[in-house]
Amino acid sequence: MVNIITLDHGNGGKGTNELIHNIFYKYLKNEILLQQGDSSIIDNINGKLAVTTDSYVIDPIFFPGGDIGKLSICGTVNDLAVSGAKPLYITAGFIIEEGLKIKELEDIVKSMADTAIKCGIKVVAGDTKVIPKGKGDKLYINTTGIGVISDVKRDFRRKLISEGDKIIVSGTMGDHGMSIFCKREGMYFETDIESDCNPLNSLIEEILREKVNVKFIRDITRGGLATTLNETLHEEKISIVINEKDIPVRENVMALCEILGFDPLYIANEGKILIVVSKEDCDKTLEIIKSNPLGREAAVIGEFIIDPNKKVYLKTKYNGTRIIGMLEEELIPRIC
Amino acid sequence: MVNIITLDHGNGGKGTNELIHNIFYKYLKNEILLQQGDSSIIDNINGKLAVTTDSYVIDPIFFPGGDIGKLSICGTVNDLAVSGAKPLYITAGFIIEEGLKIKELEDIVKSMADTAIKCGIKVVAGDTKVIPKGKGDKLYINTTGIGVISDVKRDFRRKLISEGDKIIVSGTMGDHGMSIFCKREGMYFETDIESDCNPLNSLIEEILREKVNVKFIRDITRGGLATTLNETLHEEKISIVINEKDIPVRENVMALCEILGFDPLYIANEGKILIVVSKEDCDKTLEIIKSNPLGREAAVIGEFIIDPNKKVYLKTKYNGTRIIGMLEEELIPRIC
Repeated sequence: MVNIITLDHGNGGKGTNELIHNIFYKYLKNEILLQQGDSSIIDNINGKLAVTTDSYVIDPIFFPGGDIGKLSICGTVNDLAVSGAKPLYITAGFIIEEGLKIKELEDIVKSMADTAIKCGIKVVAGDTKVIPKGKGDKLYINTTGIGVISDVKRDFRRKLISEGDKIIVSGTMGDHGMSIFCKREGMYFETDIESDCNPLNSLIEEILREKVNVKFIRDITRGGLATTLNETLHEEKISIVINEKDIPVRENVMALCEILGFDPLYIANEGKILIVVSKEDCDKTLEIIKSNPLGREAAVIGEFIIDPNKKVYLKTKYNGTRIIGMLEEELIPRIC
Repeated sequence: MVNIITLDHGNGGKGTNELIHNIFYKYLKNEILLQQGDSSIIDNINGKLAVTTDSYVIDPIFFPGGDIGKLSICGTVNDLAVSGAKPLYITAGFIIEEGLKIKELEDIVKSMADTAIKCGIKVVAGDTKVIPKGKGDKLYINTTGIGVISDVKRDFRRKLISEGDKIIVSGTMGDHGMSIFCKREGMYFETDIESDCNPLNSLIEEILREKVNVKFIRDITRGGLATTLNETLHEEKISIVINEKDIPVRENVMALCEILGFDPLYIANEGKILIVVSKEDCDKTLEIIKSNPLGREAAVIGEFIIDPNKKVYLKTKYNGTRIIGMLEEELIPRIC
């Protein structure tokens, strides 16, 4: 086999078959994927289905803390998990630019396989397309995830949120976005900023297993905490107040944001969730999250208040109040 | 709203939300898609699931007989249908190159919506990424389809095929590939070659509804009839003989293939299937197919024979015999 991807690897014939057997099946194989039909057949499923899709176009494809393969599994698994679903199956569509090193593709596929095992999911279907040089950027991956919601109580809807509910974030903000920015721009620091890219289904499972009144969970990705909070506001006449001093941000991330004029509240994460919980169950929930290695730096950052304006208010460190809108201008493109 | 796609349309914030509401929801909305969570929740499903994924990178994105939107629904629906599944749900991941005209995106999304209605499926989840100019080519779409197999008899496996089984193709070969080639190269003929891009789930449903002993169905896409036939060969010691004179090819497609030195057996289709049926039920099956507008030109092209070589033999018009392998060299890249 040649050592770079050529257009023939995407022709649907011999070249594609070679790639499938030598790379994809080598790492991702399971009894469902190996059916090799036009569709993969999955046995009867009990419960409601949860379905989500995401394309990953991150640049660079390898970064401190992960790569596009790990990211493409984590991102989709996390979308299922925050919906209260148990992630079970995932599909993977590869759009490869001619000229990608086969070794790089292999490393990425291996990373997907390792992450899939960690998450307890199976890659059940795949597709490979190769596009000519200059019509892509190394590799784009689409993953579509299928999960099952067996417990009806796990069907979160924003409308459950009410005044007094507390907002918890599971860790520091902005690590992923700033890690990608540094790697892309070739900036190096004594303390490297690492992406937080991680599957959160176990952490979420641990929260849901306990009898705590969790109203809503969402992963904090593109657009950062500010955008996610705004998306959490529903038609009801409630607003959010968050306290700047309580929002966990790593020192190196904060320092870099200050130099560049970025606001960490708008920087993407790939391993952090926002949890809305009743006031009464807030402490217990925080304790559960903190006992998981992926939630060690979790913090309560604010709460829902009665206010007809449907806004997110930030209480600054200097006791001022600022309205935090959704992300308007792209700060760091292609972070996922 | 501006009239071209900018990077802000993919930032996951305000720009993305505008695009979702003004374009995607306008055409694709249904009660499942409008849940707007991280995952879409689908009520309990009865039966086995069929899952398939495909990325569409066709160039050009508009062509005689269709566009990338129609293709991205048909291709995935057909993959589900040939597996004996009833297509129900589909996800759509858009990778848009900065600078695409919003009007073009809207036409494509409208075309997806029209095709989805025709197929009886719902678009249940979506994703939008925007990549900088020169890192893509207008638009790539991934669709992942979910169907249900409620009837166990519909679980096709190649191992059911045996000696004497007949091979039917549902119409003319090579229309799609040659249509794309002409459009891309700016070649015009008096009789335009139109892509056969079409959803085949109704046609397949009609075949399966009757009591005919269908062993295997596959859609004939990338790599053409030759590649599909080779993929139909199983470990058993059987081979295939097909008769060149019986293979339906349009006159204009044949003429163009001869000029260019292409073999229509290797040219892609997007609205044709191969059906393997018992000898006894062949005539009845052909009749059913021909009574559907999408199968009017169907023909019996060959059969399975006992032969240890596991090959596809072509009986030429001049009574010679040629072995037909899988596609080795890409003739027309990016035809889907």
